[in-house]
Amino acid sequence: MTKITPSIPKGSRDFNAETLYKRQFILNTIQATYELFGFEPIETPTMEKLDILTGKYGEEGDKLLFKVLNSGDYLAKANAEAIDARNSAKATRSISEKGLRYDLTVPFARYVAQHRNDITFPFKRYQMQPVWRADRPQKGRYREFYQCDADVIGTNSLIAEFEFLQIYDHVFRKLGIRGYEIKLNNRKILAGIAEAIGTSEKFTDLTVAIDKLDKVGVEGVQKELANRGFDPTQQDAISQILGITGCNEDRLKAIEALIGDTEIGQQGIAEMRELLELLEAVTVNKDKIGVDITLARGLTYYTGTIFEVKVPESGIGSISGGGRYDDLTSMFGLNDVSGVGISFGLDRIYDVMEILSLWPERLKRRSPTKILVTYMDDAVKSNVIDFMEKLRFNGINAEMYLEKTKLGKQFKYANDKGIPIVVVIGSEEVSKGKFQMKFMESGQQQELEPAYIINALKRL
Amino acid sequence: MTKITPSIPKGSRDFNAETLYKRQFILNTIQATYELFGFEPIETPTMEKLDILTGKYGEEGDKLLFKVLNSGDYLAKANAEAIDARNSAKATRSISEKGLRYDLTVPFARYVAQHRNDITFPFKRYQMQPVWRADRPQKGRYREFYQCDADVIGTNSLIAEFEFLQIYDHVFRKLGIRGYEIKLNNRKILAGIAEAIGTSEKFTDLTVAIDKLDKVGVEGVQKELANRGFDPTQQDAISQILGITGCNEDRLKAIEALIGDTEIGQQGIAEMRELLELLEAVTVNKDKIGVDITLARGLTYYTGTIFEVKVPESGIGSISGGGRYDDLTSMFGLNDVSGVGISFGLDRIYDVMEILSLWPERLKRRSPTKILVTYMDDAVKSNVIDFMEKLRFNGINAEMYLEKTKLGKQFKYANDKGIPIVVVIGSEEVSKGKFQMKFMESGQQQELEPAYIINALKRL
Repeated sequence: MTKITPSIPKGSRDFNAETLYKRQFILNTIQATYELFGFEPIETPTMEKLDILTGKYGEEGDKLLFKVLNSGDYLAKANAEAIDARNSAKATRSISEKGLRYDLTVPFARYVAQHRNDITFPFKRYQMQPVWRADRPQKGRYREFYQCDADVIGTNSLIAEFEFLQIYDHVFRKLGIRGYEIKLNNRKILAGIAEAIGTSEKFTDLTVAIDKLDKVGVEGVQKELANRGFDPTQQDAISQILGITGCNEDRLKAIEALIGDTEIGQQGIAEMRELLELLEAVTVNKDKIGVDITLARGLTYYTGTIFEVKVPESGIGSISGGGRYDDLTSMFGLNDVSGVGISFGLDRIYDVMEILSLWPERLKRRSPTKILVTYMDDAVKSNVIDFMEKLRFNGINAEMYLEKTKLGKQFKYANDKGIPIVVVIGSEEVSKGKFQMKFMESGQQQELEPAYIINALKRL
Repeated sequence: MTKITPSIPKGSRDFNAETLYKRQFILNTIQATYELFGFEPIETPTMEKLDILTGKYGEEGDKLLFKVLNSGDYLAKANAEAIDARNSAKATRSISEKGLRYDLTVPFARYVAQHRNDITFPFKRYQMQPVWRADRPQKGRYREFYQCDADVIGTNSLIAEFEFLQIYDHVFRKLGIRGYEIKLNNRKILAGIAEAIGTSEKFTDLTVAIDKLDKVGVEGVQKELANRGFDPTQQDAISQILGITGCNEDRLKAIEALIGDTEIGQQGIAEMRELLELLEAVTVNKDKIGVDITLARGLTYYTGTIFEVKVPESGIGSISGGGRYDDLTSMFGLNDVSGVGISFGLDRIYDVMEILSLWPERLKRRSPTKILVTYMDDAVKSNVIDFMEKLRFNGINAEMYLEKTKLGKQFKYANDKGIPIVVVIGSEEVSKGKFQMKFMESGQQQELEPAYIINALKRL
């Protein structure tokens, strides 16, 4: 074996204990909330067939898929023409049949279609797994990152949307994220706008243009619309809609006045009103939820309510998003099944909590160990071992220092690892029947009976 | 989008809730035990550079690595000669720089070498992540499966080995696996045997041959030894060693008589004795631990104690293994750091528990939901929603049926999902101030006040 400088692929990360405990806190919070609302877990394989993945994320998405080389003599079955012409794009599918999961939505749709006969509908599932994208890595953007999805599929009920808004309230309250904002819209309202101004065929152009309002302002959107072939009257109508302000109900009224003649627009407004009305019955903080008709969400499969969550003061992009889709599983042959889902980005939430210093004190630890027991004298080794066993049988995370060495080194070890308590057991302590227990942070030290130490730690 | 028949790559699996709750039980048990002994978590990326992975698992292992195709125009930078000659093996490295994690040991060695300045030694880490191997799938062998590793690195102390034997005792007790057997050996004893019979240069041949005793018997091993160039005297000496019986100490004595003249053999026997002596001080079930000098463990990096665990009555192969290595990290430029580690195979343990029906009753569930609340009358929808909110604020996993529909359909839903309790709320119930609570298994039904239901469920 030649010596290799140890390093990892760009865009990927090693996680140490301190970071993992924080990530686990976020994952556990989301998971517990999903289960509180009756969502059940599923997991899907890391690799999916490229047949399943390709064409689902647009041309750009296809390029960002990590593709796995076929095993064995893959060139024997390769597309000879493409290989000889050095046409990478054309050759790929002949030497690669599998790719890494790009998101959790397509694998979920595949799962539902594949296992439709074993599933009880409406199916409420959650899934928290890593996904991979060959994006250019940059601050806050990784090539391997976690998504935490939940979906309800098999019902049109708006109670599903309503419960996702409650889930947001639960999760952010438990994480201590106060400054979040939920943007709410409905693709039917956007469709109503397109129809009202006579550009239904340019629905996607419309959503792409108004989606940019945050970045380029009203004038920028006007320019974008002009470039996409909207005439001045249409541009003005859209500007008017973008200028709507006021509380949620005021906004809906103003929109209704403009698009209320279209059936789809009416539907969208009715759905939005029903959703907002449901919220009135519960304690969810309504101030956090704002109707925002500039919200479009890029993904083409959304057909109804759409959500997006940001924490503006963090400077981080959206930490969650989602929406209703009417026909997600039809790509796998299961038609007319409506669903709605949301996705939390673990890594973005982590960044928000880091930037805003929101971690609970108990998570700031580098080691699971509550107590280090010293090893200084072979004459009392069996006493140490006996004490260790008692600690662990009482569920107390404990370490014995593994080598007989100077006490200073053992204390340094505890200090470096952030272990809060050290117990010293020498022959003097054993003959007295009392061990020295030292709290590392305060430096406070006490001589205590072993049973007393165990009882005290059990209560901690 | 064309319609695709939904399926997954061979050797991979979808997991439903029922299976995941069982897998999670095993993972949680192992994780809690590792933390009880002071091991801290790390995670490493799914993809490692092929420079890191290649050459670490033997020629066969290299073939079983899943390799990830480079992004973009990979053929432009490909080895033209190899491509034109359709030499797949030679071309691979020029079109693929990354591979999927094959085990957790090499990434761990890479991690330790890379982060050596941030680590407190002895470093006790655990890691529970999937690994991938392009093996031929068969019963119990998957292409994606979980390993649960723990290692102590940076000490020669046998207390590390001793604690791993305690960990086995804890984990299997908590999982309810009684019929496990731990085989224990020391590679220094094997080296002593090789030296004693004058075949030190054939150490690997010797271990490979005796490793087969279980499968081919003493005569088979003799034949294997003959094929590998051992002369009849050597074969006889080895057969004599393989015939050793008795309790652990008897075995050690018999081995000592045969190889006690070699320094390395003496060392191995001394280490084994020290380890067995440490066990005398604790309550670990010593009957489960047997010295077995036919245990070799294939991996070349082991240098001291080696472990292997089986549950014979299950018919499943080894569910855990491990050992001491003196120089694992030297492949990444960090020399002279001794360590010892074990690895549990989640999927094999799952199979053992399935075969022996060892799952605790509470894991046999298909849904996290404890209570389904019916939805039958819009007039009392707000009462249902209010009750739902109270359930959830009290930490009770609850679902409201999402659509107003026949009660029978709602009960069927609860039944299909294994939800144990259904609460019926109609206008009559609301006016009485008492809801109908039905236990699905017994069919027992009671009229109870909402606050009473919540208190009862909280206590459950």
